[in-house]
Amino acid sequence: MDIATIVGMILGSFLILWSIAMGGLDKLMIFWNVPSILIVIGGAIASVMVAYPLKAILMSLKYGMISVSHNEYSPKAAIEQIVSLAETARREGLLGLLALETRMEEITDPFLAGGIRMAVDGMSPEVVEAIMNTEIDAVNGRHNYGRSVIANYGKYAPAFGMIGTLIGLVLMLADLDPDTIGSGMAVALLTTLYGAIASNLFLLPMADKMGFVNDFELQVMEITLKGVVSIQAGENPRVIRQKLMTYIPPADRPADEEEGG
Amino acid sequence: MDIATIVGMILGSFLILWSIAMGGLDKLMIFWNVPSILIVIGGAIASVMVAYPLKAILMSLKYGMISVSHNEYSPKAAIEQIVSLAETARREGLLGLLALETRMEEITDPFLAGGIRMAVDGMSPEVVEAIMNTEIDAVNGRHNYGRSVIANYGKYAPAFGMIGTLIGLVLMLADLDPDTIGSGMAVALLTTLYGAIASNLFLLPMADKMGFVNDFELQVMEITLKGVVSIQAGENPRVIRQKLMTYIPPADRPADEEEGG
Amino acid sequence: MDIATIVGMILGSFLILWSIAMGGLDKLMIFWNVPSILIVIGGAIASVMVAYPLKAILMSLKYGMISVSHNEYSPKAAIEQIVSLAETARREGLLGLLALETRMEEITDPFLAGGIRMAVDGMSPEVVEAIMNTEIDAVNGRHNYGRSVIANYGKYAPAFGMIGTLIGLVLMLADLDPDTIGSGMAVALLTTLYGAIASNLFLLPMADKMGFVNDFELQVMEITLKGVVSIQAGENPRVIRQKLMTYIPPADRPADEEEGG
Amino acid sequence: MDIATIVGMILGSFLILWSIAMGGLDKLMIFWNVPSILIVIGGAIASVMVAYPLKAILMSLKYGMISVSHNEYSPKAAIEQIVSLAETARREGLLGLLALETRMEEITDPFLAGGIRMAVDGMSPEVVEAIMNTEIDAVNGRHNYGRSVIANYGKYAPAFGMIGTLIGLVLMLADLDPDTIGSGMAVALLTTLYGAIASNLFLLPMADKMGFVNDFELQVMEITLKGVVSIQAGENPRVIRQKLMTYIPPADRPADEEEGG
Amino acid sequence: MDIATIVGMILGSFLILWSIAMGGLDKLMIFWNVPSILIVIGGAIASVMVAYPLKAILMSLKYGMISVSHNEYSPKAAIEQIVSLAETARREGLLGLLALETRMEEITDPFLAGGIRMAVDGMSPEVVEAIMNTEIDAVNGRHNYGRSVIANYGKYAPAFGMIGTLIGLVLMLADLDPDTIGSGMAVALLTTLYGAIASNLFLLPMADKMGFVNDFELQVMEITLKGVVSIQAGENPRVIRQKLMTYIPPADRPADEEEGG
Repeated sequence: MDIATIVGMILGSFLILWSIAMGGLDKLMIFWNVPSILIVIGGAIASVMVAYPLKAILMSLKYGMISVSHNEYSPKAAIEQIVSLAETARREGLLGLLALETRMEEITDPFLAGGIRMAVDGMSPEVVEAIMNTEIDAVNGRHNYGRSVIANYGKYAPAFGMIGTLIGLVLMLADLDPDTIGSGMAVALLTTLYGAIASNLFLLPMADKMGFVNDFELQVMEITLKGVVSIQAGENPRVIRQKLMTYIPPADRPADEEEGG
Repeated sequence: MDIATIVGMILGSFLILWSIAMGGLDKLMIFWNVPSILIVIGGAIASVMVAYPLKAILMSLKYGMISVSHNEYSPKAAIEQIVSLAETARREGLLGLLALETRMEEITDPFLAGGIRMAVDGMSPEVVEAIMNTEIDAVNGRHNYGRSVIANYGKYAPAFGMIGTLIGLVLMLADLDPDTIGSGMAVALLTTLYGAIASNLFLLPMADKMGFVNDFELQVMEITLKGVVSIQAGENPRVIRQKLMTYIPPADRPADEEEGG
Repeated sequence: MDIATIVGMILGSFLILWSIAMGGLDKLMIFWNVPSILIVIGGAIASVMVAYPLKAILMSLKYGMISVSHNEYSPKAAIEQIVSLAETARREGLLGLLALETRMEEITDPFLAGGIRMAVDGMSPEVVEAIMNTEIDAVNGRHNYGRSVIANYGKYAPAFGMIGTLIGLVLMLADLDPDTIGSGMAVALLTTLYGAIASNLFLLPMADKMGFVNDFELQVMEITLKGVVSIQAGENPRVIRQKLMTYIPPADRPADEEEGG
Repeated sequence: MDIATIVGMILGSFLILWSIAMGGLDKLMIFWNVPSILIVIGGAIASVMVAYPLKAILMSLKYGMISVSHNEYSPKAAIEQIVSLAETARREGLLGLLALETRMEEITDPFLAGGIRMAVDGMSPEVVEAIMNTEIDAVNGRHNYGRSVIANYGKYAPAFGMIGTLIGLVLMLADLDPDTIGSGMAVALLTTLYGAIASNLFLLPMADKMGFVNDFELQVMEITLKGVVSIQAGENPRVIRQKLMTYIPPADRPADEEEGG
Repeated sequence: MDIATIVGMILGSFLILWSIAMGGLDKLMIFWNVPSILIVIGGAIASVMVAYPLKAILMSLKYGMISVSHNEYSPKAAIEQIVSLAETARREGLLGLLALETRMEEITDPFLAGGIRMAVDGMSPEVVEAIMNTEIDAVNGRHNYGRSVIANYGKYAPAFGMIGTLIGLVLMLADLDPDTIGSGMAVALLTTLYGAIASNLFLLPMADKMGFVNDFELQVMEITLKGVVSIQAGENPRVIRQKLMTYIPPADRPADEEEGG
């Protein structure tokens, strides 16, 4: 689990509560208003339901979890495994690709396993590359879809915050009473506040995070694709390693590898 | 019919009415103002009329229905039919494409039927692919056009909400009367409220939904295009199946097919 | 003339006047303020003058007329004429292109005439295609230029609406007088109202309309380009017809032509 | 000098002053506030300094002058000169390019001169085209850089207008005095007004203008590039002329040249 | 160190302080409010933490320093070194690339050193170009990542400024007291002011600056890539020089090199 996302949410929430409580702990209750919470959260869910198929709504929570789940995709480990496979293939000469058959079970990444499987099965390099590329596009499409669901919650929450405030203002203005005008307007503003917090502290940053998780995963998939293509072409493992290492920041590269900035 | 779109509209409307009615059912009448509704809806229609040919205006309702109509495009069914056609073509050897003639009537998708028809008629693969690609572009263009009509209603409704509020404010300010200032301003704010609801709960999410419906349909068309091209090239049905299955999320693929994430 | 643009402008203007007049016809005069009109319209013209060469300003009115002029570009008529020309060229065999010489005067579209002329003159197909493509790009560039002029009026009108309101507020606040504060603020808000109406009912939708007119014209030009290329390549008129018909929505195609959605 | 830019600035400034002075010439002094001007202009300069290297700041004035300087780039004159050079090269046969040596001194455009020089020197057509293309990209990059400096002034001026207004509001609210509340708020609003005028009447339109000046210059460079390539390929001057003329609107073309719309 | 960034920050801060202090030095204290600073800065950090992995947060300060660090990338020096290497390689004839071995230690730019090393090692030109291109993409990706962190601080700081102001308004309105309404609202507005200053004077311009630093560095890398490719191809040093010089503005080129504008 990536701790930063959780820590950020707790830190932000704490700061908001602390800034309210500074004027007295009793002030906190002013900011607790169930109908206002319902209109902002429920309204955002309603709008997202209009925009997406039912299935996407039901998976919202799962999508949201992606942003806080740990990113296990290690480009370096992927490169080492590919280079090791390339060495096996190279060592065996013409029968090299068949030799990979014996190592299939140690490959845990299904994308790499699928690519090696196709190479071992003797499919042409163009077909292997095309199938792997379509898979990358499809994964990217699914991730962007999930991210757009969360981003839309983040877009409609402030909209319903404004709708709630307008409703509160109309109610207050239609029945002007000097004694309650202040508290009426305070309640009216709460929905705008809830919408701003939901969007800026939770939903929009979570959508951004999902984008980065996607970028990391796609990068490992791209490294894997280039590696399988290179293995199939019978390239020198040392050259494969050098090629794939360019994906990794120089500072993170093992020894003797330092270029650019 | 996709239930989510309808449920979302009802849920959002209910939440708004409930949050108003909490202060007393009599409050609901404050929010019912026919002239305000007319300026927001009528104004948005007027602006869309300026921007689009008459025909697009008349088809607005039909466009809107696309967002709530059920999406019947099943990529899996399309793949199975294409693989089955490929098997027929392959079994018959050199005469394979002609054999497809006998199966023309079981093809209900006009796009697939058209592609197979051209292949059977002996048109060159490049021409078949070009014609099918132009058709995909054209369908995409028409869908985006319809979506843009709905999105423009969603853009101009809040604009006329603001225009209505400005008119209300000017009327109220030009004739300041302490007794009616509150109710005058309440009425003025109603158009902004109507515009925000029309746009955020109905029009913009409907336009988004139309985009997803389009994406699904185009994906099936792209699968169909790749399938027809592969059949014409006499490819192995098993390879065709593997290629086309990459369009489907791994979790939804039938057995023995699991790759990536 | 496309009636929708004019009807939309009249409908929107009527709705705005009606919503004002509901409170009494005398209210209409409150909304008539010449200096406010001048600052919004004049200011927008001034900003557009800073941004564009003098010539573009002088042609603004002509640009604006494009949005209300009737679109005469009929893709179907263009296709029929191209197919007819292709039949003539085909019937004459090797001398086919020369045979088109006799039909030059019946071609009224200068873009098609120019393309056929070049083909008849024996220019190489690559050069003909390149010249026609440059022409399409140039027409597109000129149309986008004109549209951007109108869109910029639509961008700067609300900006000067806000500038006018700020000036009015400063004047009113600098000399606070309880008796005139209401009417002072009413007048100040008028420029914002004018800017919002000018932009949302007239200028921005007109710019959108100019974009659609451009899209239609470019589509006919693209059909023409593909047609000339096909004629020069001596393609079968039936195939040419099938190719070009994909640009037309299935519902609008003549009989035996139905594909996709 | 393009008169429109200067006239637009004067017209806009006059309209603003006139709309203020309508209530009495003494009102003009209310709008003259040196600290407010300093915070808007100085703040925008400060933010642009943070964003750009020192050199870009020092050249701001020069960049700004581009938007009001006359555009001398005449595509038609460029085409005539290129066609004339092509005729010389063609007339001399195999030695044609060398013949251009004698006409080098009459070429005033350094970009055309450089291209012809490389052709005369016998560099391969691919290298000539690559070098000229890099030059076009570089000119485009430099122009966009200058334009972005002016556009950033236009972005930060209203931001500091808002900062100035917030400071004024806080000062006024911290020390509420019924007698000065109006004038305090009037002064606070001045910075927003200055920022809006600086951005909408001067800076953003100037940045737009710089974009058009760039477009015109790049078009002439592209015509020049295509011309040099055609001359080097020994193309017929008449065909070169026809090709290059497509860059010019039909209405502006000399006689016998009319196509498209 | 690029002085402009630091000078701009100091100038902007001074202008803001000066405009406050004009009404009396004691006014400065009104604008010093620790809780308001904490909610804006802390909130922005919290939102960025939600969006980015922990590592990116910890590197924020380092990223920020890039915007104020001096840009040492001199395209001209890079070109001179490449041309000098090309001369060495050319002089030695067939063994030219090996001759570069002796000059490896004088190359301080690791990107150029890596490229020359691969060329000397006899890797094929396509592989060298591909590896160097991947490296350029990777550097660009890392720089954009760092820049997006700073840009996100600049996006969330004003959002928390608004959240802080909403909290302050609700607290003030819930407990309306004519004596403190002014100072309560003044304090509420401070967070919006802090957010606007943090974003417009510091964070957004710093993110822009990081973009320019990136552009400069990438340009030198592109020049280096083209240079290594040319050296490996055994091109004439004079031609290499002419090619690479097109990246430099004509005014900055050494003598006899003047083209375009």
